[in-house]
Amino acid sequence: MICENLSVSKDGILFFGGADTTEMIKKYGSPLYLMDEVRIRHNCRIYVDSMKKYFGENAMPLLASKANSFKQIYRIANEEGMGTDVVSSGELYTAKCAGFPLEKAYFHSNNKTDADISYGIDCGIGYFVADNEEEICVIDRIAKEKGIIQKILIRLTPGIDPHTYEAVATGKVDSKFGSAIITGEAERVFNIALSKENIDLCGFHCHVGSQVFDSDVYIAAAETMLSFVADMKNKYGFITKELNLGGGYGVRYTENDPVIDIPANIKLVSETLNEICKKLGIDLPAIRMEPGRSIVADAGLTLYTAGSVKRIPEYKNYVSVDGGMPDNPRYALYKSEYTVVCANKMNENCDFLCSVVGRCCESGDILQENIYLPSSVERGDIIAVLTTGAYNYSMASNYNRIPRLPIIMVDGKRDYVAVKRETFEDIVRNDI
Amino acid sequence: MICENLSVSKDGILFFGGADTTEMIKKYGSPLYLMDEVRIRHNCRIYVDSMKKYFGENAMPLLASKANSFKQIYRIANEEGMGTDVVSSGELYTAKCAGFPLEKAYFHSNNKTDADISYGIDCGIGYFVADNEEEICVIDRIAKEKGIIQKILIRLTPGIDPHTYEAVATGKVDSKFGSAIITGEAERVFNIALSKENIDLCGFHCHVGSQVFDSDVYIAAAETMLSFVADMKNKYGFITKELNLGGGYGVRYTENDPVIDIPANIKLVSETLNEICKKLGIDLPAIRMEPGRSIVADAGLTLYTAGSVKRIPEYKNYVSVDGGMPDNPRYALYKSEYTVVCANKMNENCDFLCSVVGRCCESGDILQENIYLPSSVERGDIIAVLTTGAYNYSMASNYNRIPRLPIIMVDGKRDYVAVKRETFEDIVRNDI
Repeated sequence: MICENLSVSKDGILFFGGADTTEMIKKYGSPLYLMDEVRIRHNCRIYVDSMKKYFGENAMPLLASKANSFKQIYRIANEEGMGTDVVSSGELYTAKCAGFPLEKAYFHSNNKTDADISYGIDCGIGYFVADNEEEICVIDRIAKEKGIIQKILIRLTPGIDPHTYEAVATGKVDSKFGSAIITGEAERVFNIALSKENIDLCGFHCHVGSQVFDSDVYIAAAETMLSFVADMKNKYGFITKELNLGGGYGVRYTENDPVIDIPANIKLVSETLNEICKKLGIDLPAIRMEPGRSIVADAGLTLYTAGSVKRIPEYKNYVSVDGGMPDNPRYALYKSEYTVVCANKMNENCDFLCSVVGRCCESGDILQENIYLPSSVERGDIIAVLTTGAYNYSMASNYNRIPRLPIIMVDGKRDYVAVKRETFEDIVRNDI
Repeated sequence: MICENLSVSKDGILFFGGADTTEMIKKYGSPLYLMDEVRIRHNCRIYVDSMKKYFGENAMPLLASKANSFKQIYRIANEEGMGTDVVSSGELYTAKCAGFPLEKAYFHSNNKTDADISYGIDCGIGYFVADNEEEICVIDRIAKEKGIIQKILIRLTPGIDPHTYEAVATGKVDSKFGSAIITGEAERVFNIALSKENIDLCGFHCHVGSQVFDSDVYIAAAETMLSFVADMKNKYGFITKELNLGGGYGVRYTENDPVIDIPANIKLVSETLNEICKKLGIDLPAIRMEPGRSIVADAGLTLYTAGSVKRIPEYKNYVSVDGGMPDNPRYALYKSEYTVVCANKMNENCDFLCSVVGRCCESGDILQENIYLPSSVERGDIIAVLTTGAYNYSMASNYNRIPRLPIIMVDGKRDYVAVKRETFEDIVRNDI
């Protein structure tokens, strides 16, 4: 199994985080997201502990709100010593409602509206990660109006190609995010920030991309960033207090994805960064990392019930489920790979080549193409798509006016509702 | 301009359906969807009138719920004499809440759950469009339990390649939708339906794809369907009462898309179908067509406010707006083309090559790449994306916890809220 929290009972039932998946469907209805609180905490601790061990007590990983934002995730992350990033006022609102200490919150985004900045300051947000000159000016103006000094980091683009796919490659010079070091824009924006009375520039942020499976790219990015840090010290006497390296390490969607030893990787990054700092004659700033989807992805799966099973001789076979692109648009968006199993027939041989498709009126509504399920698969079977804890609930829509799924949390001892299932009343609530 | 309901004032302001777009933003906030009730009614009438004229009084076009489902659209469609299709209980619920007469409603979908079928019958749905054998059996069983005879059509795949892109090509034999004629499956399923006591088989449905710009494909599909109709008459004495040809004609996203003369096309289809029927010795069944997005697409546009404008010398230029893939995921999904304009600078020369990007923390959050806007474009300008009346609101998500936009309706005399803007409270409503 691709994650150690998965197991199979003697009678071929998939268990997840200690819970019988078929019982969860009976209890909470179909389809649903299942999340494993123990696994979330385990993933948080790997980063918190390794970062403190190798970067020192002032290092901190940040929860990526965009991967999966709901109240309970902030409570868990806070209890485990994580900070958080938010990319919108809506994520900030959710963290606030959950009682997350917002001095540990960082407000990202390539385009913060004036309303976002005003709301962030009103909430006492720890830091804005300012994307560009314009934003620095707006933050300064609004901070002045509100009579405060606002801490910020500046988002820089180190010009690293993360060897990952285009849609999440965000560290290149040609990006909607950040200010490029190589073009001189970063230094110009740095000077603007320094000149602002109501801004307290604390450091810099970069992000080179998601689903990265080795540390080379972080080290390359960090090298560029630390050179910039040294330059700003030498030229302007500026001391960088914080350096945010972004993130995060890749997760396993299928058996083909490698297992990453995160503590070993963080140790390697730490050693290399310390060496670079020594060479450059600077102190290592407080390090932030953004583990991104790796906190929540393998702590979640989606359970569906099979509907029509269509066998078209000499063409193709289709297994339809009672969900699809509204709850998981990632295949439609990126052709993302997932591991799909028949959760109530785990002991049967998988020799039925089929595509697992959703219930939407759209041919592109596919969860996975050309995978193998047991040939006995039929209406009423439980289909599980693994590793859906990230970018499924957070990207979910009501396409075809299908209510969004609940998030059911298990913790080895009990199961509970973290997010309720949407109702039809919810869907038409704003219709006049 | 790509649609006749667009105009520009002397001082360079974009008007839509008679409304000043910049005033709409001032009145209702940014971003928002704007829809033109007059244009929706105009589009409905083209189909209703042409179909009655050329196919007879019992012909009827159906509103495609999935293109844009909200209460007011059903009220308008009903007043204009349209039927509707729904693909889920949620769409059916919305139509019901709006008082739409459900005997004119058709329940599509490749995978209706037992709950959908039960709810449909309870609502008095006119027809189920049964996808396959399994569904016919479930409809018959539940109809029997409820003591009624349920009218159905059977969805067939005529094996037509609609010369359109894969994701909306649904008439091919290899499809998650329907039962294929060529493989013999259609006839087998037909006989199963005939044998069921609680099913009243009224006819057949096919759908060959969206965004079709000439009638060849409908005629080819109809020819196959009518041959099947004649076969079933000759072999089993079955009289087909209804034939649903699906739809719909393409809409204009850019100036490169052709203008379609829909009445002329419907006339052509009608003449050809009547000829085919004569040859086959059958009466033309009551015709249904599904105009799909062509009822709502050009009756809608999206208004945004520009945020950061990023000029990266020798690389690229970016104009960020306060929306993006959560309100319009079609570029991220299909690289869909749109016409984008600066609504408050319509008289300025457009010579600034840029990409218009959203506010999400994702590189793929792009509304349109490499288009031209006025070089003076800056924070605060109003950016309009045209032809967004279909598959924008209906596919919208809360990705990055961004509230969904309101739908503001204009009708030449007044403007009103058809769907309220989502609040942060709405977003966390189901969080525990």
